[in-house]
Amino acid sequence: MKILAVGAHPDDLEILCAGTLAKYALRGDEVTMTVATNGEAGSATLSKEEIASIRQREAQASADVIGAKLIWMNYPDEFLFSTTETRLAFLNMVRAVRPDVILTHAPTDYHPDHRTTGAIIWDIRIMTTVPNIQTENPPCEKIPEIYYFDTIAGIDFVPEYYVDISECFTTKQKMLACHRSQEGWLQNQYQMDYMQFIDRISGYRGLQCGARYAECFRVSPTWPKWPQAPLLP
Amino acid sequence: MKILAVGAHPDDLEILCAGTLAKYALRGDEVTMTVATNGEAGSATLSKEEIASIRQREAQASADVIGAKLIWMNYPDEFLFSTTETRLAFLNMVRAVRPDVILTHAPTDYHPDHRTTGAIIWDIRIMTTVPNIQTENPPCEKIPEIYYFDTIAGIDFVPEYYVDISECFTTKQKMLACHRSQEGWLQNQYQMDYMQFIDRISGYRGLQCGARYAECFRVSPTWPKWPQAPLLP
Amino acid sequence: MKILAVGAHPDDLEILCAGTLAKYALRGDEVTMTVATNGEAGSATLSKEEIASIRQREAQASADVIGAKLIWMNYPDEFLFSTTETRLAFLNMVRAVRPDVILTHAPTDYHPDHRTTGAIIWDIRIMTTVPNIQTENPPCEKIPEIYYFDTIAGIDFVPEYYVDISECFTTKQKMLACHRSQEGWLQNQYQMDYMQFIDRISGYRGLQCGARYAECFRVSPTWPKWPQAPLLP
Amino acid sequence: MKILAVGAHPDDLEILCAGTLAKYALRGDEVTMTVATNGEAGSATLSKEEIASIRQREAQASADVIGAKLIWMNYPDEFLFSTTETRLAFLNMVRAVRPDVILTHAPTDYHPDHRTTGAIIWDIRIMTTVPNIQTENPPCEKIPEIYYFDTIAGIDFVPEYYVDISECFTTKQKMLACHRSQEGWLQNQYQMDYMQFIDRISGYRGLQCGARYAECFRVSPTWPKWPQAPLLP
Amino acid sequence: MKILAVGAHPDDLEILCAGTLAKYALRGDEVTMTVATNGEAGSATLSKEEIASIRQREAQASADVIGAKLIWMNYPDEFLFSTTETRLAFLNMVRAVRPDVILTHAPTDYHPDHRTTGAIIWDIRIMTTVPNIQTENPPCEKIPEIYYFDTIAGIDFVPEYYVDISECFTTKQKMLACHRSQEGWLQNQYQMDYMQFIDRISGYRGLQCGARYAECFRVSPTWPKWPQAPLLP
Amino acid sequence: MKILAVGAHPDDLEILCAGTLAKYALRGDEVTMTVATNGEAGSATLSKEEIASIRQREAQASADVIGAKLIWMNYPDEFLFSTTETRLAFLNMVRAVRPDVILTHAPTDYHPDHRTTGAIIWDIRIMTTVPNIQTENPPCEKIPEIYYFDTIAGIDFVPEYYVDISECFTTKQKMLACHRSQEGWLQNQYQMDYMQFIDRISGYRGLQCGARYAECFRVSPTWPKWPQAPLLP
Repeated sequence: MKILAVGAHPDDLEILCAGTLAKYALRGDEVTMTVATNGEAGSATLSKEEIASIRQREAQASADVIGAKLIWMNYPDEFLFSTTETRLAFLNMVRAVRPDVILTHAPTDYHPDHRTTGAIIWDIRIMTTVPNIQTENPPCEKIPEIYYFDTIAGIDFVPEYYVDISECFTTKQKMLACHRSQEGWLQNQYQMDYMQFIDRISGYRGLQCGARYAECFRVSPTWPKWPQAPLLP
Repeated sequence: MKILAVGAHPDDLEILCAGTLAKYALRGDEVTMTVATNGEAGSATLSKEEIASIRQREAQASADVIGAKLIWMNYPDEFLFSTTETRLAFLNMVRAVRPDVILTHAPTDYHPDHRTTGAIIWDIRIMTTVPNIQTENPPCEKIPEIYYFDTIAGIDFVPEYYVDISECFTTKQKMLACHRSQEGWLQNQYQMDYMQFIDRISGYRGLQCGARYAECFRVSPTWPKWPQAPLLP
Repeated sequence: MKILAVGAHPDDLEILCAGTLAKYALRGDEVTMTVATNGEAGSATLSKEEIASIRQREAQASADVIGAKLIWMNYPDEFLFSTTETRLAFLNMVRAVRPDVILTHAPTDYHPDHRTTGAIIWDIRIMTTVPNIQTENPPCEKIPEIYYFDTIAGIDFVPEYYVDISECFTTKQKMLACHRSQEGWLQNQYQMDYMQFIDRISGYRGLQCGARYAECFRVSPTWPKWPQAPLLP
Repeated sequence: MKILAVGAHPDDLEILCAGTLAKYALRGDEVTMTVATNGEAGSATLSKEEIASIRQREAQASADVIGAKLIWMNYPDEFLFSTTETRLAFLNMVRAVRPDVILTHAPTDYHPDHRTTGAIIWDIRIMTTVPNIQTENPPCEKIPEIYYFDTIAGIDFVPEYYVDISECFTTKQKMLACHRSQEGWLQNQYQMDYMQFIDRISGYRGLQCGARYAECFRVSPTWPKWPQAPLLP
Repeated sequence: MKILAVGAHPDDLEILCAGTLAKYALRGDEVTMTVATNGEAGSATLSKEEIASIRQREAQASADVIGAKLIWMNYPDEFLFSTTETRLAFLNMVRAVRPDVILTHAPTDYHPDHRTTGAIIWDIRIMTTVPNIQTENPPCEKIPEIYYFDTIAGIDFVPEYYVDISECFTTKQKMLACHRSQEGWLQNQYQMDYMQFIDRISGYRGLQCGARYAECFRVSPTWPKWPQAPLLP
Repeated sequence: MKILAVGAHPDDLEILCAGTLAKYALRGDEVTMTVATNGEAGSATLSKEEIASIRQREAQASADVIGAKLIWMNYPDEFLFSTTETRLAFLNMVRAVRPDVILTHAPTDYHPDHRTTGAIIWDIRIMTTVPNIQTENPPCEKIPEIYYFDTIAGIDFVPEYYVDISECFTTKQKMLACHRSQEGWLQNQYQMDYMQFIDRISGYRGLQCGARYAECFRVSPTWPKWPQAPLLP
């Protein structure tokens, strides 16, 4: 399968679904990690350009851990909107990847860029196979299914599916650790120790579903969708 | 009464509320059908201009079946947004019709154009009677009530009201059949036989409320509204 | 039409739907008011028997105001349960009335007797027309529709329908005023001036729907139901 | 796998999940169909005993179609409650089957027996493996997962999972057709043609998920549960 | 504490939270009232410029009643959007005030300007402390908590917190009475007597929580938040 | 203040709210811990009587850690129901304590005894001050406020209030550790290391609200209530 994960800022995918991406990669699926904005707000000491450039390298290093491809869309941090221009850019990006499944932010997440990233993906899902909406890349053959991953701190998120990531948790840690520039920033801004953060949320989601560590998801409410279900025939 | 139905694409009104429109028309109400976008995405073989022009003729033919007026707003398919420009255009259109009731898309429907069409109508409802917001057409005397019709495939829609359309179902079929250009398109894109589709959804909504065929609605959560209720005095 | 309103305690119907009952009566509908429990908890000074007997007379006086029939079921206040015995008693009572519509408590109301009263009505709705469930009174010909009325203080209640009771508000006041024994009780127990209470809630529901005074309702989520809708054809 | 389906009345499982049961059976899973009540309310002409006995034979015939085992619990129709006695009887029944998955009624279904059947199953799920709660059959080794199937007419049910039953739809029809005694009863009571009913609901659920016919489910909100998910690794 | 209340139009804060603002002021907190749009739609007889200028003076007079500071953002009435420009302007405004708590419109309110005002505040909350997002005013030291106040007519609003404003209700009346230009306008547009309106809604919210008059709030679902008794007076 | 916490089984209060109870105790509030059932299901090797007696001693030891009073109601594990008898017993128990606040199980928790414990408390809340409902202990002077604590594994629980328990977390650990008999049982039944369990859930609730460890609550939706800062420590 081809898997596309789309996060708002560098480090969002690592926090919210890197264990699942590592598990996909481990079984041989083709994984692409797209980062919508350049994360230029993420420093108290460096200029926008400096921190953005550092974060791109960190995101690349993280993708390299599982052999994923990185797509860097470079939109300005904090100011992403669903417009004709961004819809076409996201559409072209998805058509380049041609995924079976897209993992992205839920509409209830805590940050406007997160909500907008998920919204644009939702907005362009139907268009992926439509020939009259032209982009550099040709239309997909199949409309991908969208899964929303957990929100930051689980705010307003009721899980539908769990993925046991116990075997991939150290990989998840390795991926997040690539985002070294954020360690101090998150500590100062949010009193958040980011390595402890993923231990707590993955451990909690694990406790809910009988695994040591887990990540959780919901399917996007849209149409058409396809019948598939765990434990059911 | 004056009835205004506003759909995102040509054929949406036929699928989601044409039985109700036919029933309104049958009892002598004045019905207007507005189509927000030109449906130019709806073909795998024709150019945007060619398919848009065909679809406008099909929409007109469908409106003619029940003697409704057609308003063709001609916005680009897949890229409708709530902006100052679109709000004023929708406001002017509503003020031309001066409806008692507006039927439009629910905020949970499966397509961004559907959601945006319903959202713009909601956005301009209060403005319809406000003199300082000037448009070519003068303000309405009365704020119209908004009813949301069913969503495509009933995704995330909990009906509040049912309309028995058994007597008008063949008219609904005749109206949808005017959209001949979409027959093959929907079959190829969504494996959807569009005549069977309306048989299934209208039959299902009928089964829920004790009719052979039905369509269903919710009232828009807004203010001011007026007291009116079935079976209650 | 035949209307049946079922309240948990004497004075509940007056507070929550008496304006609507008065309006039904005014247009010639046949109204029955059933009180499930004897209200024997409603006094700080009188014995259970004394206060229950007073409250039955008060309920009768209130029903007389609009020419309604009173049914007094006499279950012990605070201890109503859905059992085989209560279901059969409620079923027999409904079959005596043979209503088109039943108004009763919503499942989110603030008091267990309120919730249970509404629950028993819901539990026996389907049975009303079933011959093999035998009661003294013969089965109904038609399953009645259930409407839930507002909750005390509107706790967890989202109105679907409003009834303009402006013309009947003084009748509602007259009906509640029959429950004189509760005036001091409610004041002491809940710091609640009961005449001001209905002015406030009916005024508030009125303000929501453009009437001076209103009461509000939701339809019970069950099946089968019948297509009927305000403003729709 | 061992599959247990628990319905309130004879014919409920056929209407709501027989396609899925047939598909389980087809791939070699061991299927048990439990009917909680005796369905003695389901006739306008026969006595309770006569109709109950006919319905038991019909339920057996239906189970035979897919080689399932039938368990007939024989509780009185319309009067099922969650008590110590019923909990222990259900617990013993589940321990006899030792299922991996239980399919049963959702808490929002339209009939009290449906809600109570699902509630008792939910009430005893944790007890299945507890040795100190003794029944004739010994404790299970593993707590089964509970899936709720669709409600009658889809009232208040938002599907989480779909099962494509296109290949098993004629088997579903064959199973429901065994309940011949209900054909006239349902027609008279609810104006419901029961064979058309399953065509409409299975067709509608199919249309939602891209299948010709489908049935749908939700997972029960409880704990502990286990990580498993479609399309996810 | 420093309190910032942000309303869409002049008079919104008075209707929805002025009692709470008065109570804050009374105990010595520093209160700022921001009005996002100029309210130029609020007249049937005056030009946009005339009515906007009158309403600014009225808003100032109302703020003066409690010694609050007024910030007049002057966006065009009915056409507020969340854009880069408005986000930066709101951000700069919040950084000027440096509040502990922000009170603003809930996402379910009845008017697009109300929803958008609340949305922009939500959108920029995280940015308030981010140095790389530069505005004329320097970043805040602490991310403020957002409370949503009640909606007009309580549409779709479930209160989490109540503030007893009995002692400040006459101040609230005095503040609303400053908006004299709206008295006739609201009466004609919505049959709404604005002084009676606040009596009814504050009385109703009072009745829900055991006070003579009250206002109600919900906390915004976001992250990070702090474990604390609410910051309401 | 007087605080009453009511749990279904010995160890439930320790897992779900012991940090908050410790914090109450620390500031001098009078804390009572009531256990509804005897927990006799909690062993794979001991008889009902043996394990129940051990668990009562463990519960007492845990209460002793914070100087709380223990009330042992001794209902049979797994079979608690809301009946006249249990309502009166709970009512009498509450009247003995005369609490300002009651902490108990939420209606969405994972186990029937948990739901029923919370339900009975809710059922009798209004009765606490009613003289005509007589119990051994006299009526309370004031209706207590009910807060629901978190559910096991957070299933279906959306927190409204957080209490920072960082300073009391080791006390919480000490209290849970008194339930030594459950250590092996929970490990075998649910693969649940109970000391790790509370570390994970308290750590996760802390992460949501900016504390090292936290517990969370919702207010019960009922009436009457009072406008107040929450009664949590």
